[in-house]
Amino acid sequence: MPLADATKDSRRSPRWQARREAIIDTSARLFASRGYHATGISELCDANDLGKGALYHYIGSKEELLAAIHDRVMDEVMLGADRVAAAGGSPPQQLAMLGDELLDVIHRYPDHVWVFLHEFPALTGLRAAQFRERRGEYELRVEGVLRAGVESGEFRDLDPWLTARAWLGMHNYTYLWLKPDGNLSAHEVASRFADLFIRGISKS
Amino acid sequence: MPLADATKDSRRSPRWQARREAIIDTSARLFASRGYHATGISELCDANDLGKGALYHYIGSKEELLAAIHDRVMDEVMLGADRVAAAGGSPPQQLAMLGDELLDVIHRYPDHVWVFLHEFPALTGLRAAQFRERRGEYELRVEGVLRAGVESGEFRDLDPWLTARAWLGMHNYTYLWLKPDGNLSAHEVASRFADLFIRGISKS
Repeated sequence: MPLADATKDSRRSPRWQARREAIIDTSARLFASRGYHATGISELCDANDLGKGALYHYIGSKEELLAAIHDRVMDEVMLGADRVAAAGGSPPQQLAMLGDELLDVIHRYPDHVWVFLHEFPALTGLRAAQFRERRGEYELRVEGVLRAGVESGEFRDLDPWLTARAWLGMHNYTYLWLKPDGNLSAHEVASRFADLFIRGISKS
Repeated sequence: MPLADATKDSRRSPRWQARREAIIDTSARLFASRGYHATGISELCDANDLGKGALYHYIGSKEELLAAIHDRVMDEVMLGADRVAAAGGSPPQQLAMLGDELLDVIHRYPDHVWVFLHEFPALTGLRAAQFRERRGEYELRVEGVLRAGVESGEFRDLDPWLTARAWLGMHNYTYLWLKPDGNLSAHEVASRFADLFIRGISKS
C-alpha cells in the first residue's frame, strides 16, 4: 500500500533527486545527534541551508523526511537480501552472506541506522504500517534461511522466529560500536559473527 | 567519582525515597513513549501529579532524573552480575547465568531499558562519565567470563571484546520484543540463547 508521495515522483530531475538525497543524509545526521522530536523545522532549514518553503518542496513534511531515512536503510537492506537470494548456496552460506550485507549497511549508514533503530515509533499511520511491513519482510528472509537449514538437516531443530531475533540482535546492535573509521571492518566482524552463530545452530 | 546528589541522601525518609522511586518509574514511561528531549518539565509534573517545586524537590533536575533511570537499570544489572560471581561455576555456567539475570532486568524494566538504550547520549559531563564507567564495568564482567573460558580450554580461542559485543547485542536487543505479557518467559529465552551462544564458542 504505497503512500501517494509527490517527492518520490520519478519525473523529477536527477538534480532535484540528488538534492533531496543530500537533504535526507544531512537530516539523518541531525536527527541522530539531537533526536527526531527535538529537532525543529528551522534547524533542518539551517543545516540544509534552505528556506522553509524550499525544504518542504523537497521533503513534504518532517515525518516524510523520517520515513525517507527509514526507506534509505530498508532499500539497502532489501537489496542486500535480494543479492543473497540470487547468489544461492547452502543455508549456512546464505546466513553468512546476509550478515555480511547487513553489517555493510550498518557500517556505511551509521546516522540513518541510528535514526532507524531509535525513532521508528515516531512514524504514524500508513508510514508506520509500511515500515513494519518492510521490516517484517526482511525478518522473514532471515527466518526462511533458518527454516531451510532445519529442513536440510544442517541446522538443529530450532525456533526460526526466536533464532532470527538472536541473529538480528547480534548484528543490529553493532550500530553502537561499528564505526566507519574503526579498527574492525564490517566484513571481518560479519565473518566472526557468522562463524559463532552457525556453529551455535549447526548439528555437530 | 560520585556526583554530589542531594536526592540520594540516605537521611531522607523511606516515604520520601518511595515517592522518588515512583516518580522515576512514571517518568521512565513518559520518556520511553515520547523521548527525553521532547518531554518537558510540565508534562513530568502532570504525569506525576506534582507542582514544579515539588518535582525538583524529589529529582533535582531533568537530567538527574534521566541519570536515576539509568542507575535503576545499572543497579539491577550489577546486582545480577554480583550474584553470578558469588554463585561460582564454570565459565559456560557463568555466561548462562549472566544472560538469565540480564534478560530478567530487561523483562521487568521495559521502559527504563528503552530509555537507557536510547537516551544515554543525553547524559552530560560527570553523569555521562559515571554511566560509561558502570556500563564498562559490566561489559568487563562478560569479557572476563569469556577470557576465563578460553583459559580453561572450554571456549575456543576467541576475541573477548568482540565476542562480548555479540553476546550483549543478542541479549540487549530483546528489549524490542521481550514483553512482560509475552508468550516467552525471560528465563526460557535466556536458556535458548545460552545454548546457542555457548555451543557457538565452545571447543567441540
